Amino acid sequence: MSHPISTQNSDAAFIVDWAAHSAFGAVPGTSGVDRQAASAADGAQRAWFAELLTGRGFTVHRDEIGNQFGLLELVPGAPYVLTGSHMDSQPTAGRFDGAYGVMASAYACFRVADELRAAPEGARFNLAVVNWFNEEGSRFKPSMMGSSVFTGKLGLAEALATPDPRGATVAEALGELGELGAGPVFGAASGRSVASYAEVHVQQGRSMEEDGVTIGLVNATWAAHKFEFRVSGEQAHSGSTLMAERRDALLGAARLVVAARELVDEFEPGVLHTACGELNVYPNSPVVVASEARLLLDLRSPDAAVIRAAHASLMETVARVEREDRVTIEVIAEHAWDQNPYPEDGVELARAVAAELGLTHDRVMTVAGHDSTNMKDQVPTVMLFVPSVDGVSHNLAEYTRDEDLLAGIAHLTGVVRRLAAGALTAG
Amino acid sequence: MSHPISTQNSDAAFIVDWAAHSAFGAVPGTSGVDRQAASAADGAQRAWFAELLTGRGFTVHRDEIGNQFGLLELVPGAPYVLTGSHMDSQPTAGRFDGAYGVMASAYACFRVADELRAAPEGARFNLAVVNWFNEEGSRFKPSMMGSSVFTGKLGLAEALATPDPRGATVAEALGELGELGAGPVFGAASGRSVASYAEVHVQQGRSMEEDGVTIGLVNATWAAHKFEFRVSGEQAHSGSTLMAERRDALLGAARLVVAARELVDEFEPGVLHTACGELNVYPNSPVVVASEARLLLDLRSPDAAVIRAAHASLMETVARVEREDRVTIEVIAEHAWDQNPYPEDGVELARAVAAELGLTHDRVMTVAGHDSTNMKDQVPTVMLFVPSVDGVSHNLAEYTRDEDLLAGIAHLTGVVRRLAAGALTAG
Repeated sequence: MSHPISTQNSDAAFIVDWAAHSAFGAVPGTSGVDRQAASAADGAQRAWFAELLTGRGFTVHRDEIGNQFGLLELVPGAPYVLTGSHMDSQPTAGRFDGAYGVMASAYACFRVADELRAAPEGARFNLAVVNWFNEEGSRFKPSMMGSSVFTGKLGLAEALATPDPRGATVAEALGELGELGAGPVFGAASGRSVASYAEVHVQQGRSMEEDGVTIGLVNATWAAHKFEFRVSGEQAHSGSTLMAERRDALLGAARLVVAARELVDEFEPGVLHTACGELNVYPNSPVVVASEARLLLDLRSPDAAVIRAAHASLMETVARVEREDRVTIEVIAEHAWDQNPYPEDGVELARAVAAELGLTHDRVMTVAGHDSTNMKDQVPTVMLFVPSVDGVSHNLAEYTRDEDLLAGIAHLTGVVRRLAAGALTAG
Repeated sequence: MSHPISTQNSDAAFIVDWAAHSAFGAVPGTSGVDRQAASAADGAQRAWFAELLTGRGFTVHRDEIGNQFGLLELVPGAPYVLTGSHMDSQPTAGRFDGAYGVMASAYACFRVADELRAAPEGARFNLAVVNWFNEEGSRFKPSMMGSSVFTGKLGLAEALATPDPRGATVAEALGELGELGAGPVFGAASGRSVASYAEVHVQQGRSMEEDGVTIGLVNATWAAHKFEFRVSGEQAHSGSTLMAERRDALLGAARLVVAARELVDEFEPGVLHTACGELNVYPNSPVVVASEARLLLDLRSPDAAVIRAAHASLMETVARVEREDRVTIEVIAEHAWDQNPYPEDGVELARAVAAELGLTHDRVMTVAGHDSTNMKDQVPTVMLFVPSVDGVSHNLAEYTRDEDLLAGIAHLTGVVRRLAAGALTAG
């Protein structure tokens, strides 16, 4: 079969639109972006994206947590095939992470819409593109906020009241941009429902590039255990207080950061990733022994048994630091998940599309979470990766080649075409 | 000889004024304060202090870096005996640090002023009280800013342009409070000069309390070497990036914090104090390997040879961390001083006053810097300590007993009386 693509939705048009899209929040002198959730750059980009969608006949809606949707109703009253990702970024980040997934979804829907308009009898479902709010969680925690509220995993009121470091809430920030909708776009009250979900993302690792794989068929998420620790000591003059009398919270926190790295060496290479990316110190003053430090510390592994063993070892370190450095260490938040499979029929559908298009493909696990991690628990879901050069991620220099971007769109188009025709949905 | 004290300037009056004074910036539910330089609380307290000074016949002036002076001209055109300390505090701090010294100085001057008004023929110099701007250096760096500009050790323009963490400059913050003066209060242009300087401070350690000493005769400052390090790595996804490929700036910084503590154990107990009280991480986000961390690290010792050996050992650690953790570590600022004596004739004058008053006394070194550290290089200077319970410092629970506060005022009054009569000044 052949699927003509209008000039408007050609690969060349995508490349032009992609360049325009990457200018929002662009960091001067780099190829990366700073486009945190509900920032001015995020708002400007949402306005641009809304124009793109309406120009192709989609209607634009936003829900009560700021998720942005483009809807095309082809079959009145029918459920929607939903596809998308997120346009928000870390404070300084690459231009592909999330954003590529939204733009690829838009182009996949534009192309399938052209086909279904030309042959309406093939349409079983309607089409929807989504730009999920605040996937990154850098300005407002937790991450994957928009898709978590959408899937009922996070309460709306709690999410809207979440403050950024300066005290502005999600509700205020979205309200200022005019991006806070009045209510749900999907669900019983709206009269719309989701039939299935698809997402494409750049791989945040280098295995596909090394293995020569163009399309990653994501079949599972790594297990993870994430902690927020509070280390409590006692303020003192950092010059005159005798060393033995100090209770230094920053010292305690630093020992945990070092211990997290050393934990990795207790296991086989590659089976445990640990990280501390955020550490806040109080009062954080040159001549004061810190009374409090808070840090986020993550353990990740494809193997849940490794996580459990690493957790036990970490807690031994915590007890030793408390004793030797005379500080108190509490876990004030934690969040864990086991190795988490994606539905096998979605993986098989993606494999079949890749085979049809002659694209190299393989099953891959994802270490990072994605909005699809929320969606896959509710509706049939397909998750795809395209390669990232050197696996560089959360970095201004993140890069994916044009040919891989275009192959990902071609593949996602094939997935959306099948989903719109009823694949993965019963009956 | 006998020196009657007016009811207005009695010990009882001081206790009342001290309680009023401690209310500015008081932290609810504690006995401590938050009164950072040029904060609203600092401004309110300055206004209150100006009223206290004018009520006793002093004229209030502020100079071009916000140092607040109370002047009493008894001998037209003669130089001034200057005495004071600082009223600004760390973000959460005790109510004695600095503030006691300013209030003790005011009361010492009030009492000596009473005496000299009653017997004007004894006055050789005029009297001045000073509240130095920004001794703590928590909001605006460096510390001892007001006395450093006053003594020409720091440029005025540079000091005025110093931003706080939110970007407000010293000039803006002082200007908003109406505490930025038009020009110098002392020096050639003003027609006023300083004959000598005296300061009293609570000890930020427990040696005097342990030894039963009421008046500390400060005879030297510890040697110190202070560093600001910048650790540079590379942003990456903190979940998916292989451990061996990371260049984690926060890990490198944490290794330095731990190394600073471990350095102490290479020397005899008590001869080396190390500290890191401030650490800032970028981008400080939950799922990003940090690309940069900056930390302040101090080495202090009464023995300059210990500082040199500790410095050499620290630099070996820096080289090892750079190699093993694949980060770059630069010293972006450093500041060192050798063991630094106070003038011996000032120590002897303070000893004589203590003996005359029957107050227990001993020579002590100061680990912390004080505004007198700047002044002693320019004019005859006396530096005094009173005890602090358990040596608690830079802490809301800092405490000095009333009897020690009053003994310190009695002693400082004796020192100011002798200085006003010409002690320590040639001719």
